[in-house]
Amino acid sequence: MRFDGRKFDQMRPVNVIRNYTKYAEGSVYIEVGDTRVICNVSIEDKVPIFLRGKGEGWITCEYNMLPRATQIRKIRDITRGKIDGRTMEIQRLIGRVLRSVVDLKALGEKTLWIDCDVIQADGGTRTTAITGAFIAIVDAVNKLHRKKNFKVYPIRKYLSAISVGIVNNEKLLDLCYAEDSNAQVDMNIAMTDDGEFVEIQGTGEEKPFSRKDLNQLMDLGENGIKKMIEIEKRSLKMDALWIGTGDKK
Amino acid sequence: MRFDGRKFDQMRPVNVIRNYTKYAEGSVYIEVGDTRVICNVSIEDKVPIFLRGKGEGWITCEYNMLPRATQIRKIRDITRGKIDGRTMEIQRLIGRVLRSVVDLKALGEKTLWIDCDVIQADGGTRTTAITGAFIAIVDAVNKLHRKKNFKVYPIRKYLSAISVGIVNNEKLLDLCYAEDSNAQVDMNIAMTDDGEFVEIQGTGEEKPFSRKDLNQLMDLGENGIKKMIEIEKRSLKMDALWIGTGDKK
Amino acid sequence: MRFDGRKFDQMRPVNVIRNYTKYAEGSVYIEVGDTRVICNVSIEDKVPIFLRGKGEGWITCEYNMLPRATQIRKIRDITRGKIDGRTMEIQRLIGRVLRSVVDLKALGEKTLWIDCDVIQADGGTRTTAITGAFIAIVDAVNKLHRKKNFKVYPIRKYLSAISVGIVNNEKLLDLCYAEDSNAQVDMNIAMTDDGEFVEIQGTGEEKPFSRKDLNQLMDLGENGIKKMIEIEKRSLKMDALWIGTGDKK
Amino acid sequence: MRFDGRKFDQMRPVNVIRNYTKYAEGSVYIEVGDTRVICNVSIEDKVPIFLRGKGEGWITCEYNMLPRATQIRKIRDITRGKIDGRTMEIQRLIGRVLRSVVDLKALGEKTLWIDCDVIQADGGTRTTAITGAFIAIVDAVNKLHRKKNFKVYPIRKYLSAISVGIVNNEKLLDLCYAEDSNAQVDMNIAMTDDGEFVEIQGTGEEKPFSRKDLNQLMDLGENGIKKMIEIEKRSLKMDALWIGTGDKK
Amino acid sequence: MRFDGRKFDQMRPVNVIRNYTKYAEGSVYIEVGDTRVICNVSIEDKVPIFLRGKGEGWITCEYNMLPRATQIRKIRDITRGKIDGRTMEIQRLIGRVLRSVVDLKALGEKTLWIDCDVIQADGGTRTTAITGAFIAIVDAVNKLHRKKNFKVYPIRKYLSAISVGIVNNEKLLDLCYAEDSNAQVDMNIAMTDDGEFVEIQGTGEEKPFSRKDLNQLMDLGENGIKKMIEIEKRSLKMDALWIGTGDKK
Amino acid sequence: MRFDGRKFDQMRPVNVIRNYTKYAEGSVYIEVGDTRVICNVSIEDKVPIFLRGKGEGWITCEYNMLPRATQIRKIRDITRGKIDGRTMEIQRLIGRVLRSVVDLKALGEKTLWIDCDVIQADGGTRTTAITGAFIAIVDAVNKLHRKKNFKVYPIRKYLSAISVGIVNNEKLLDLCYAEDSNAQVDMNIAMTDDGEFVEIQGTGEEKPFSRKDLNQLMDLGENGIKKMIEIEKRSLKMDALWIGTGDKK
Repeated sequence: MRFDGRKFDQMRPVNVIRNYTKYAEGSVYIEVGDTRVICNVSIEDKVPIFLRGKGEGWITCEYNMLPRATQIRKIRDITRGKIDGRTMEIQRLIGRVLRSVVDLKALGEKTLWIDCDVIQADGGTRTTAITGAFIAIVDAVNKLHRKKNFKVYPIRKYLSAISVGIVNNEKLLDLCYAEDSNAQVDMNIAMTDDGEFVEIQGTGEEKPFSRKDLNQLMDLGENGIKKMIEIEKRSLKMDALWIGTGDKK
Repeated sequence: MRFDGRKFDQMRPVNVIRNYTKYAEGSVYIEVGDTRVICNVSIEDKVPIFLRGKGEGWITCEYNMLPRATQIRKIRDITRGKIDGRTMEIQRLIGRVLRSVVDLKALGEKTLWIDCDVIQADGGTRTTAITGAFIAIVDAVNKLHRKKNFKVYPIRKYLSAISVGIVNNEKLLDLCYAEDSNAQVDMNIAMTDDGEFVEIQGTGEEKPFSRKDLNQLMDLGENGIKKMIEIEKRSLKMDALWIGTGDKK
Repeated sequence: MRFDGRKFDQMRPVNVIRNYTKYAEGSVYIEVGDTRVICNVSIEDKVPIFLRGKGEGWITCEYNMLPRATQIRKIRDITRGKIDGRTMEIQRLIGRVLRSVVDLKALGEKTLWIDCDVIQADGGTRTTAITGAFIAIVDAVNKLHRKKNFKVYPIRKYLSAISVGIVNNEKLLDLCYAEDSNAQVDMNIAMTDDGEFVEIQGTGEEKPFSRKDLNQLMDLGENGIKKMIEIEKRSLKMDALWIGTGDKK
Repeated sequence: MRFDGRKFDQMRPVNVIRNYTKYAEGSVYIEVGDTRVICNVSIEDKVPIFLRGKGEGWITCEYNMLPRATQIRKIRDITRGKIDGRTMEIQRLIGRVLRSVVDLKALGEKTLWIDCDVIQADGGTRTTAITGAFIAIVDAVNKLHRKKNFKVYPIRKYLSAISVGIVNNEKLLDLCYAEDSNAQVDMNIAMTDDGEFVEIQGTGEEKPFSRKDLNQLMDLGENGIKKMIEIEKRSLKMDALWIGTGDKK
Repeated sequence: MRFDGRKFDQMRPVNVIRNYTKYAEGSVYIEVGDTRVICNVSIEDKVPIFLRGKGEGWITCEYNMLPRATQIRKIRDITRGKIDGRTMEIQRLIGRVLRSVVDLKALGEKTLWIDCDVIQADGGTRTTAITGAFIAIVDAVNKLHRKKNFKVYPIRKYLSAISVGIVNNEKLLDLCYAEDSNAQVDMNIAMTDDGEFVEIQGTGEEKPFSRKDLNQLMDLGENGIKKMIEIEKRSLKMDALWIGTGDKK
Repeated sequence: MRFDGRKFDQMRPVNVIRNYTKYAEGSVYIEVGDTRVICNVSIEDKVPIFLRGKGEGWITCEYNMLPRATQIRKIRDITRGKIDGRTMEIQRLIGRVLRSVVDLKALGEKTLWIDCDVIQADGGTRTTAITGAFIAIVDAVNKLHRKKNFKVYPIRKYLSAISVGIVNNEKLLDLCYAEDSNAQVDMNIAMTDDGEFVEIQGTGEEKPFSRKDLNQLMDLGENGIKKMIEIEKRSLKMDALWIGTGDKK
C-alpha cells in the first residue's frame, strides 16, 4: 500500500478538459492526481531558420511552473534572469518526444508551439505535460486539417508518457511528489500505442540499478502507458479518427 | 447596446473560486467575463532589506500572462530577456493598491507575495487581478490570524477595482478587449468600501477628456466597484468577519 | 507656508534653455526648482515593426537618472542588469502623453526618440520631463517643417504636466522631494492648452481620497498647467507659430 | 564495417593525460577518437546554500565547448546571453552521475567543481567528459586524502559512460559525429564497475525502438563500459588504491 | 592650421564648473571645446570584498554617454543588454589612473565612486573625464578632510590627461572628433605634475609609428598636460592647498 | 637573477603547435613558459553591418580563460551574466592589433574570427595570444589563398607582442604572473618586423614612470619582439612565403 492508498501499479485519477482556453488552436487542461497542467498549442506560419525553405514543419515546447505550483514559492525565471536547467531539460524532452510521432514533412512549413504551464505540481509534471500536449496537438492539427485538408495526415501514432521508479526498494508506477522525492531510481518513459519507446530517461542517483530492475520498470511503465493512451482515446473520441491514417513509414 | 449585449453600466458575469490550488496560503481563481486570472498569495517570514528591523510587513506583486492568454501568442519574458513595461506597471499598481488597505505594522515582519497569472485575457486583467488578490489576501491573513491571533487585524477595508472608458463617445463600465482596444479614454479605478479612491489612472491617448467626462466616469466606476465589493462579500462570507475590526485610522 | 517658503498653489521657478546640445534635432535643458532634466529629441527615418507601411509616425521615450541625481547614489540600470519599474512607468507615460498631441499621420513614417536624462532630482522629474520634451519636440518638428514643409503641421496643441498632492492634509501644487516623500496623496496631471486631460495618475497609498479631494486637486493642477504653458510659449516665441494650425480634429 | 573502419562493437582509441594543467586539484585531458576534453576539478571549502550545516559535500559540473570545437563556429554563450539547453542538460547529467559514486557525507562540507571544456568535438563529448571527470575527481580526492586522511574514503566505485545507438538499422558502440548525426536511436549509458546503471538516456526521435533493441543496446554498452573502466584503472594505477575501500553501503 | 583654426600644439578652450550638482560630494562640469562631461564623486563607507578589513580605500569609475551625446543616437547599454567594450575600457582607465595619485591607505576604508557622464562628445571624452574627475575627487576628499582631518592627506599629486595623435602625417595635440576619426595614430597620456607618466595608450591601427614619432608625441602631450594642470590649479585655488602635503613616497 | 632563473632580458621558452584542432581554418597552440593558449581562426563569408557592401573584410577577436586557467577558479562569464572588463579590453586589443597588419580591402568581404582560449595563465596571456593569433591568421589566409589566389596577398607584415615592466625597480622582459602581480609598471607592446609600433599600453598604477624608463622599456621590448618574430618565422617556414609580397603601402 502506497502513501495515498494506491497499489504499486496503479495510476492516479486522470482528468482532461479540451478547449480549455478560447484563443489557442489546441488547449488542454490535464490533471493527474494533484498535478495540473495547461497545455496550449499555437500554430505559427513559419519555421526556425535552420528549416526555412525545406518544406518541413517544427514542434517546439516551452514549459513553466507558476511560482506557487510548489510547496515553497519558486522565484520566476525572469526575476532570476535565467531559465533553470530542469526547465530546459523538460521542455527539450517534450518537444523531442512529440516530434517523434508527427510527420513534419506532412505538416509543411508551420511551427507548433506547445506551452505547458504547470498550475500545481505533485510529481510527474513532465509526463503529464506530454500526455496533455499530445491531445492539444491533435486538436490543433485537426483545426488545420478541416481547413486545408492535408494530403498526408501528420499525426502517425498515439503517444503518452509515465513515470516509474524505485522507492524503498519497491517498484512503483506514476510517482507523486512524496514518492518522487524519496526515489532511489527515477525513470520517465514515453511510448507509442504500438508499444515502442520514444524516450527512456532513468537515473539512479541514490542507488544504481540492475538490468533486471530496468526490465521490471519497463513492464510497469508499458502497462501505465497503455492505460494513458486509452484515456487519450476516450477524451479525443471521433477527433482521433485520422491518427495514423497518413502513415507510410 | 454594447458589443456583447450589455448595457453601458453593466459588468460582465463574475465567478470566484477560493482555495484553487493546494499549496498557496491564499489561492483564488477569478473570472470576469472571459478574463481569467489565478491569484496566489504566499507568506514569507522576512521583508525586503529597506524594511528590516522596522517591525513592518510588505506586500509585493508579480503579474504575468500565459503566452497564449491572448489572441496572438506572446513571447515569454524569459525568452525576450526582460519584463515588458506594461507588466511592470501592472504589478506595481497591484502591490501599491493592496498595501493601501493593509496595516503593515499590524502584519509584522512578513511579506505577502501576490502572484497574478492570467490564464485568458479579455480586457480588465489588472482590475480583475486586484479583486482576486484582495480575496486571496484575506484568506492568507486569516490563516495567520487563526494560528497566531493578530493583536490588530491587519485588513482595514474592502477593496476592489474596475475599468471604465469612453468608446465611440459612450461612457462604459468594465471594458472587454474589443472595447478596450478602441477606447478613446481608458481609466482604471481602485476604491475602498467607504467610497474613497486608492488609485485613479486615466489616459486619453486617442482623445483628451474634460472634467465633466472625468466626473461621469467616476460615477460609473463607483457603482461598479460597489457591486464588485458585494461579490467579494458573498464569496468570503464568514471569513470576512474581521475586516476593518482592527482599524484605528 | 511650505518647506521652501512657497504658497500652496505656487510653482517653483522654471528655467528653460533650448538648443542645449549641438547634435540632437531638439534639445532642451529644463529646471523646475532644483529638478534639472536634459530632454533631447532625435528623428529617425523609420518606425517600429508594428507600424511599418502604415504611413504613420511614432514617438517613444527613454528616461534615466544620472546615478548621483539623488541624495543616495543609485546603481546604474546596466549594473543591476534591468530597468527598474519606476523608470519603465515614467518613460511609458512620457511617450504616451506626447503622442496624444501629435498627429502621427501628419508626421509620416518617422520616429521621434525622446531622451529625458535627469541631472538632478528634487521631485516632479516626470512632469518636468514632459514639459521639456514638449518644447524639444516642437524644435525637432520645426526642423523637419522648414526642410520639407508638412502638408498638415503635426503638433496639434500645447501640452504640459504638473504634480499635485496632499501633504499633512494640505493640497499642494508642484511638490518638491521633501513634500513628495511625505505625501498622503500623489497625483500627476498632463493637460492641453484647451484645458482637457491627457493623463491623470493619482495614488492614495498612505490615505484614500474622496471625490471632493480629487476635484480640488484638479483645480490646483489646472492652474499650474496654465502657467506652465505660458512658460512654454515664452520660451518658444515665434517657433510656436504653427502649433494647432494643422489640426482638423 | 563502419565509416572509420571500426567494427560495430569497437570503441575509438582512448588517450588520457593526468595532471594536464598545474593549478587544478585534478586535471585530465582525455581523447576518445577525435573528441578531446579537458576535465579540471577544483575543490572549494564550502557548499551550496541548500546543504549548509549538514556536514555533506556536493559535486557540480560546468560543461562548455570552445567556439571552434565544431565544424561550424558556435557563438559563445556569453555573446548569446544564455546557456543553451543542450549544455544545461549535459552539465546536469555529468554532475548527477558523478555524485552517484561519491559518498558526499564522507567528503564533508566541500564542493567539487568539475569543468569540462571541449577542445574538439567528434561525438560522445558527454560520455568522454564523464570518464575524464571521474579520473580527475580521483586525483582531487586523493590530494585531500593525503593531506587530511578521510575516515571513510569517499569514492565508492569506478564509473564510466559510453554512447550506443542505431544507425542504418545497425546497433553500434561509441558513435562518432558522422554516425551520431544520422542515428535513428541515440543512447547514453553510465555504469559502475559492478555492472549497475547509474543513468540511461535513450531517444528514438527518428524511429521508436523496441524492448529487444533496448536490451541489445544495453549489452553493447555494458561491454564498452567494462573496457573504459579498464582504461581508467590503467591510467590511475596505484592512485586507484582506495576506491571502494570506504564503502559501507 | 587645423580644422578649427588651432595650431598643432594648441588645446581647445577649457571651462570648469565646480559644485555642479547639489548631492554629490564632488561635482564638476567640464568642457574641453565641445566635449562636455559631468564628473560626480560619491563617497561610500565601504570597500569591495577583495579589500575588506585591510584598512585601505578604493576608487572606481563608471563612464557613460547620453544617447544623443553623439551625431548618431547611440542605443542605451540597458537596451542592448550589455556595456560596450569601449565604455569598459574607458572606465577601467579612469579608475586606474586616479588611483595612482591617491594614497588609498591614507583614505581608509572608503570607496570613491566616480561617475563620468558625457553630455556632448567631440573627441577626447576620456581625457576630459580624467581631468574633471581629478578636480571632483579633490573636492570630495576635502569634504572628508574638513570633517575628520586625515592624518595623511590622501591626494599626492596633480594629475591630468590629454590626447595626441598623427593626422595626415601631422602630430597634433588635443584631437577633436573630426581629427580623431581620421587619425593614423591615436594616443592618450595621463601624467602627474612632476612630469611622470601614469598611463600611455597608443594605437597605430591605420599606420604603425616609429620610436621617433613616439617621442615627439610625448613632447606634445607633456606640454598639453602642463597647461591642463595649470587650469586645475586655477580652478581649485585654495582648495588645492593640501595636495602632496601628506606624501611620503 | 629573476624568480625563475632568467636574466632581465630573457624570454621564457616558447612552443608552437600549428593545426592543433581539425576544424578551424587556422589553429595554433602556443606556450610561453607556463602560459598556454589555443588560438583558432575561423573564416566567415560575411562582414559586420557597418562594413556591408564596401568590399572590405574584418578581423575580430574573442578571448576567454578556462575557469581553472588560474590559481583560484574564476567564475564563467555566462554564470556572472557579463563579460568582465579585462576580457573586453584584451579582445579589443588583439583584434585591433591584428587588423593593423592585414590589408582588409585585399581580404575582401570576409570576417576572420580569432578565438583565443587560455588553458593555463602565467602572465602575458594577451601578448602570447597575439603571437599565436598571428600564426593562425597566416594559416587561415593561406588556406584561402591556395583556393582563390588573392590578387593582393593580405598579410603585410610580421607582427608580435611582448610584455615588459618594472619590478622591484628592475626593468624586465616577458613577465610571468609572480612578477606581473608585483610590477610597479606594466607595459604591453605590439610591433611589426620593421620595428614600428602598432600598440603601446603602459600603466604605472603603483609608481609613475619617466621618459627615460619608457625608452629603456621600449629597448627591452623591441629586442624581445625580434626574437618572437624569429620564432614565428621558424614555425611558419615556407608558409610565410607570401607575407608582405602584396604590400603597396
